[in-house]
Amino acid sequence: MTFTITIAYIAAIIISLVSFGVALYFFFWVKRQPSSNETIHRIGALIGKGANTFLRREYLLLARFAGAATILILLFLPSPIWSAKSPMTNVLMAISYVFGTVLSALAGKIGIAVATIANMKAAEAATKGIRPSFMAGFRGGAVMGMAVVGASLLGVTIVYMVTNGDSSSVLGFSFGASSLALFAKAGGGIFTKTADISADLVGKVELGIPEDDPRNPAVIADNVGDNVGDVAGMGADLFDSNVASMAAALVMAIALNRESFVPMVFCYAALGLLASSIGVLLARMGKKANPTRALNMSTYITTALFAGFTALATFLFFNKEYGWRIWAAMTVGLLVGTLIGIVSDFFTNDNKHPVRYVSNASKSGPAFTILSGVSYGFLSVLPAMVGIAISALAAYQICAPLNPDDPTYGMFGIAMAAVGMLSIVGMIISNDAYGPIVDNARGLVEMGGLGDTALEVTDELDSAGNTVKAVTKGFAIGAAGLTIIALLGTFMSEVNVAVAEAAQEGITLKGIETFDILNPLVFFGLLVGAAIPAVFSAMLMLGVDRNAQRMVAEIHRQFKEIVGLKEGVHGVEPEYEKCIDIATVGALKELIPAGLMAIIVTLAVGFIGGVEAIGGYLAGNIVSGLLLALFMSNAGGLWDNAKKYIEAGNHGGKGSDAHKAAVVGDTVGDPFKDTAGPSLNTQVTVVSLVSSLMSTLFLTYSIFR
Amino acid sequence: MTFTITIAYIAAIIISLVSFGVALYFFFWVKRQPSSNETIHRIGALIGKGANTFLRREYLLLARFAGAATILILLFLPSPIWSAKSPMTNVLMAISYVFGTVLSALAGKIGIAVATIANMKAAEAATKGIRPSFMAGFRGGAVMGMAVVGASLLGVTIVYMVTNGDSSSVLGFSFGASSLALFAKAGGGIFTKTADISADLVGKVELGIPEDDPRNPAVIADNVGDNVGDVAGMGADLFDSNVASMAAALVMAIALNRESFVPMVFCYAALGLLASSIGVLLARMGKKANPTRALNMSTYITTALFAGFTALATFLFFNKEYGWRIWAAMTVGLLVGTLIGIVSDFFTNDNKHPVRYVSNASKSGPAFTILSGVSYGFLSVLPAMVGIAISALAAYQICAPLNPDDPTYGMFGIAMAAVGMLSIVGMIISNDAYGPIVDNARGLVEMGGLGDTALEVTDELDSAGNTVKAVTKGFAIGAAGLTIIALLGTFMSEVNVAVAEAAQEGITLKGIETFDILNPLVFFGLLVGAAIPAVFSAMLMLGVDRNAQRMVAEIHRQFKEIVGLKEGVHGVEPEYEKCIDIATVGALKELIPAGLMAIIVTLAVGFIGGVEAIGGYLAGNIVSGLLLALFMSNAGGLWDNAKKYIEAGNHGGKGSDAHKAAVVGDTVGDPFKDTAGPSLNTQVTVVSLVSSLMSTLFLTYSIFR
Repeated sequence: MTFTITIAYIAAIIISLVSFGVALYFFFWVKRQPSSNETIHRIGALIGKGANTFLRREYLLLARFAGAATILILLFLPSPIWSAKSPMTNVLMAISYVFGTVLSALAGKIGIAVATIANMKAAEAATKGIRPSFMAGFRGGAVMGMAVVGASLLGVTIVYMVTNGDSSSVLGFSFGASSLALFAKAGGGIFTKTADISADLVGKVELGIPEDDPRNPAVIADNVGDNVGDVAGMGADLFDSNVASMAAALVMAIALNRESFVPMVFCYAALGLLASSIGVLLARMGKKANPTRALNMSTYITTALFAGFTALATFLFFNKEYGWRIWAAMTVGLLVGTLIGIVSDFFTNDNKHPVRYVSNASKSGPAFTILSGVSYGFLSVLPAMVGIAISALAAYQICAPLNPDDPTYGMFGIAMAAVGMLSIVGMIISNDAYGPIVDNARGLVEMGGLGDTALEVTDELDSAGNTVKAVTKGFAIGAAGLTIIALLGTFMSEVNVAVAEAAQEGITLKGIETFDILNPLVFFGLLVGAAIPAVFSAMLMLGVDRNAQRMVAEIHRQFKEIVGLKEGVHGVEPEYEKCIDIATVGALKELIPAGLMAIIVTLAVGFIGGVEAIGGYLAGNIVSGLLLALFMSNAGGLWDNAKKYIEAGNHGGKGSDAHKAAVVGDTVGDPFKDTAGPSLNTQVTVVSLVSSLMSTLFLTYSIFR
Repeated sequence: MTFTITIAYIAAIIISLVSFGVALYFFFWVKRQPSSNETIHRIGALIGKGANTFLRREYLLLARFAGAATILILLFLPSPIWSAKSPMTNVLMAISYVFGTVLSALAGKIGIAVATIANMKAAEAATKGIRPSFMAGFRGGAVMGMAVVGASLLGVTIVYMVTNGDSSSVLGFSFGASSLALFAKAGGGIFTKTADISADLVGKVELGIPEDDPRNPAVIADNVGDNVGDVAGMGADLFDSNVASMAAALVMAIALNRESFVPMVFCYAALGLLASSIGVLLARMGKKANPTRALNMSTYITTALFAGFTALATFLFFNKEYGWRIWAAMTVGLLVGTLIGIVSDFFTNDNKHPVRYVSNASKSGPAFTILSGVSYGFLSVLPAMVGIAISALAAYQICAPLNPDDPTYGMFGIAMAAVGMLSIVGMIISNDAYGPIVDNARGLVEMGGLGDTALEVTDELDSAGNTVKAVTKGFAIGAAGLTIIALLGTFMSEVNVAVAEAAQEGITLKGIETFDILNPLVFFGLLVGAAIPAVFSAMLMLGVDRNAQRMVAEIHRQFKEIVGLKEGVHGVEPEYEKCIDIATVGALKELIPAGLMAIIVTLAVGFIGGVEAIGGYLAGNIVSGLLLALFMSNAGGLWDNAKKYIEAGNHGGKGSDAHKAAVVGDTVGDPFKDTAGPSLNTQVTVVSLVSSLMSTLFLTYSIFR
């Protein structure tokens, strides 16, 4: 172990612990905030109980899946245990996998725990003004941000250190994180949109009662959904992306046999976390500022700190020959991430042309809301995809000269761009988790009857959450995009390593030098891979659709059978738990098939077409996954804000025909942006990791080889 | 010139002439049918005039574009005229290009000419029963089918014969056909959906008057749209695909330097036309049969005849060593085309689960119609893409053993599969053009007041047209899919030919051996190429959206200002021409930008990233183009039929809430399936051809080379 790597390990571990410290500090700070309102307490407790129940049942289900996967890994990966050189590799990999799932689950659990407290505190604080309410929401979100990123950095560091840089174990850990994220994101996404759509459909559209009205039987389920979908699901998603980007860079450094690159990965990731920790600690809302500016300001501070820290570290610690190139590749990622965020903002901000156009089109009816929204959603993919394409090309070109004969250096540059883009992820998660917390707070203010001033405060905080969310989502997709391109390189490395290892044992496997598009196996994979994200999205959306139909029936039943509910007779309450239960049972039923489909098709393509088909398959999957994820996230965000723009009094305001049309757009957009769109990142990551892990088996046992 | 090629030329020319004969025979047969109703005559004349006016103005606009393109080709293609070995190549290519545009325009013109007569005849015949009305509709469509396919075969044969197998000229001819098709399809698609949506929106939704009601100012424009969009546009589209598939196969045969393959291409294409001619001549509706069965039966007969003819020809004329392999590759294409048609039918047939599910979901409101339709649309891409992937792989594997060292043989196999899939295109076009003719006939029956029995007859014929349309659309997309994969191979061939030619002149150009996905330039192209179909679709749909808003305003004006129009006072008529004019002007304004964008981005990627980036770009374009085309066509067809299923009296029938929701779905689906979806085939083809044509320039002048 060289001196630099030791320092890097220590830095990564210390900074992870610092971030846990910040998380704890915020957690107790949030807990200390006053809360005295009875109703809010009672409803808050209901939300917390619902979220925890769902999470427990979801994790119990996933534990079975993870258990089966662990046994399969132990037996077959990285190579069948009976033929493995050292069975210990299989054991380490299985343990790393379990470690990854446990940390990912824990991150979700912590996020929920604090979010379901912070929502009550932010609600109560709203009676005192916008600044204390903002702080409660933001610091609640920051607990999640710090915990998730700290856990991912600490986890990767421990796995890498303990296994002494075993790439199978690093990939196994990443696969653990991803496979859990895949199902958690899907399950949470189905839960939240089932409740949201059903509550809106019966409440707002049919009965014309306001959002978050306590008479609505689905209203608590809706709030639970914000937590399990947007907080826990999103946390698992970004935990997964963050781990995957580090894993890709590390595995490529191992394949390149350049130990000196490894400390740079740890160092940059750690400095990103440090910058984020400082950023969230400094976050304040100025007296005259608005919440959006406060959130953005902390992001800018974090970004600037990060750029400064890493430049300094590169100058002080790393070899000048390659240090600055790798730093530059990383910085390209950071810049492009920011640019993609800005583009997402253009397409979903209600001050800009697209939202205005769609709002105006809504006057002609829902068909035009949908058509124009789909059109702008399609347009929005261009700048982001070109941005990802340019950053991948630039990062490659920056690092390729390190050894012009070995393209893996260029791919390592792309992996570092992904690390750079995800470096400030602690800040991003904090901003993102802030959204559902203040959304919940708004609901509690309404249900607790805290008055109109408090409602205005939470409305403003909520609106800032929506604006920032579009940016962070663009960022998350961009980061996932670069990460999965890097994982394609990882797959290639793993294949070549497997071929080399087999050759040492005297077995000749047909290696690959290129994934040539004109090779019919590659092209075959390309077409099949491109279809998967569409099918995956469809399965999730149909899940929401079926589930929402069940819940709508239940809401209708309650309004019919519970006397006095519709009229709001004092003391009459709906049976909230029934709706929570329907959302839970439905989500658990629907979350497995889509993810399993993606994994099974990957195995089928690999065992039929071999590694060449998988190369094409991954490329097709990446391209179509990015396309659909960008389309669905942006179109969904656009519809959401078009509806809000009309609700703000434009084109006739609430209750007008334009508003009704915009509500249709928003309802369509909900599963687009909160179920299918963000799950696609994880789907692509999981498929990439499965392919890398299975590379030896695909090489050995496929039909076309 | 060998003996076989002479026979092939003669066969191709004679069979083209035979198909023209069949077309003429049908044309006069249709003209001879009785028509005496005054109103129908008057309205039919209005439709004919509107269609011809639009076509004339569209062609005038496109003539300017084609003129500019001709000059550019003359100056720069295949290589700049001042540096060209023989400037004659540039001249021949320019002439071939013009020839391609003229034939394509002519095919559209002929289709319109007969369709605008056949609609009146079919309407009048409907009073006598379903069989004569069917025959008038079908034979009208068959004129178009025979003329289009005859012209494409004759055109390719003449160009190949006169230029003695010059691949630039063959590609130039194909580019002429495609570039015209690109704009004609986009323009017609925008026209037809502008009118359709506007007529429905004001007529059916706002005022509750029936479809095709003569009081509706947009009703004639709607009928004109069926002709310019579905007849002329679709004809140009399939003309283009058919020419491109032959061009791809021929260019690859030239690149392989296997002259003996050329006669097979001509021979199989000619036999396909012969089989189609016989098929359409035999088409009859049995006494007890329904129109759908009659249409399908003729297709089966054609397919069987074609398989038999080609097997016989292969046995008699072609070398056994390669003959059967090439035949088998072609047959794979034919089979898979049929399979894709069957899958499209499953997703859009109102007897099957998807349409039933969406109809049922419509009871919960338009958001659910859209969500479930989008979901099934996404699901529908899987079987078709897997089918195309498998057929490409199989065709490649069948022909690759002809020379295992040269992958071009495998690509030639894929090109032959595309030729096979398109072989029965004469029949397909006939079935497809039948649809808008009987749709028009239905309108004329309604407006001419021919009575309820005649209306029922045309309703049944129209419904058969819709069912068959889904199948033919799936077929068209599948064929385009294989063709563009073959064009990717053509691009590679052209690049290698250009490199070889430059080497002869002592210039060293960096050739390419592979389009490796891990090459960052290829990956860059892949991402950008995948974004283009989304942007292209968005531009067309926004065009429809803007145009429809203008027309809706005009319809509102007329109902407001023309006294007695709404009440249907005898003798009061709307100003039909105003609406036709709005649709025309709007479509002409909107049709250029989208197509031009696709071409300009291709040039930008090529001159920046060079041929490697273009390789990735084409692959990305193909994959995403297929994905979106399948999604949009199938979702659109599904919504259309879900609406019809409800109108047939299910879930509350016409006027129910479910029906209103289904109308929203149908309105969204209209530009999906009739504007953007089918235009994507042409967009991808044009981009592929531009790339092949520009290969030398990209090799010589790109920044990264």
